[in-house]
Amino acid sequence: MTAIDTIKQLFYSQVVMVSLSDFNIRTGGSTGWINITSEVQKAVSASSVREGICVVFIPHTTAAVTINENADSDVPRDVDFALNMISPDRREFRHGEGNSAAHTKSSLVGPSLTLIVTNGKLLLGTWQGIWFNEYDGPRTRKVHVRIMGE
Amino acid sequence: MTAIDTIKQLFYSQVVMVSLSDFNIRTGGSTGWINITSEVQKAVSASSVREGICVVFIPHTTAAVTINENADSDVPRDVDFALNMISPDRREFRHGEGNSAAHTKSSLVGPSLTLIVTNGKLLLGTWQGIWFNEYDGPRTRKVHVRIMGE
Amino acid sequence: MTAIDTIKQLFYSQVVMVSLSDFNIRTGGSTGWINITSEVQKAVSASSVREGICVVFIPHTTAAVTINENADSDVPRDVDFALNMISPDRREFRHGEGNSAAHTKSSLVGPSLTLIVTNGKLLLGTWQGIWFNEYDGPRTRKVHVRIMGE
Repeated sequence: MTAIDTIKQLFYSQVVMVSLSDFNIRTGGSTGWINITSEVQKAVSASSVREGICVVFIPHTTAAVTINENADSDVPRDVDFALNMISPDRREFRHGEGNSAAHTKSSLVGPSLTLIVTNGKLLLGTWQGIWFNEYDGPRTRKVHVRIMGE
Repeated sequence: MTAIDTIKQLFYSQVVMVSLSDFNIRTGGSTGWINITSEVQKAVSASSVREGICVVFIPHTTAAVTINENADSDVPRDVDFALNMISPDRREFRHGEGNSAAHTKSSLVGPSLTLIVTNGKLLLGTWQGIWFNEYDGPRTRKVHVRIMGE
Repeated sequence: MTAIDTIKQLFYSQVVMVSLSDFNIRTGGSTGWINITSEVQKAVSASSVREGICVVFIPHTTAAVTINENADSDVPRDVDFALNMISPDRREFRHGEGNSAAHTKSSLVGPSLTLIVTNGKLLLGTWQGIWFNEYDGPRTRKVHVRIMGE
């Protein structure tokens, strides 16, 4: 091993790694929640990052990504129902596609989620899952996952 | 070139870069959406980061930053209208400045957005634009842009 | 000092640092806001990061973390009130624990906040504070703080 190899090894063993991946999902109804926790965790594992952050980003404006309970399926069902009550269709809307209620929910819940990675895994609470929210489906949707860390 | 120069070059060519910039905008009404996508993209280009993340952060509590459709101007108009319906002024509010509806919208939509940078550009969907949301204008507002990556 | 020490020093003085810490808070009512700005700033100071980002993440699904005014205590009081009006209990909810309104607020406001660190301090506006939002207390809650930068 030459000196330069030693330096390279030292360097590469410490430097921050940057990974990017994506996956598609197929949503089944006009609205609905899909649990994507395991897909995001797979991206974290593939990145080899042990300590860092994970950004989940969706390139859509009538959908969102959120964290909520992963145990009782009545929770995503109830929150989806509540979001529809909070952001109903309104007769004052002008957008010709008729999906402004979906655009509103997208801004309320958001297209981006920043998570913590530690010990090579997502740091999530016991009851937390990562959920893709469809507000104007069914459609094929994409999820981008950026991981940075060491 | 000395050995130490070689090491420095190796080092600097790999290390994560960290950049910070800001810009001001002037909002025109009490509420309203301003498209800031090109200003944020300019900050990404100036940073020389090719692969990383971009954090857009506003230092205000009666405004927000969001992503939504950049094509039909009826979408930001409709979502602005819907947010005003979701968070109206309420007679039970006690805050003397009379802008608690704006503070509420700020917490609902949020002051921070984490985006992905790839190939030196923001990774955005075809219909996505980055929008500054004024809820208590008109005012001069500031937007901070932090970029990290390699 | 050997050549390898010089290289290590050069290396460690530039490389991105990654820190993780957490703290607990005790919430006092069924809903309520707790200012956690100084605890998060303490984590930033302890990390030695001068320029970077700070991710505040809570491992809960009936709480949230947000930024809002830190001056007049009527603002968090009013926003808490407004959130209860926007997401009331609904008779259509099925989740047996009876806290779906809290789960809804958690998705609306969010469990994660990405902040900018500069000069070793959080970059916040004059009126901005970081607030933990309890929606289903009183409980002991945890806040994770991830800092990355140089």
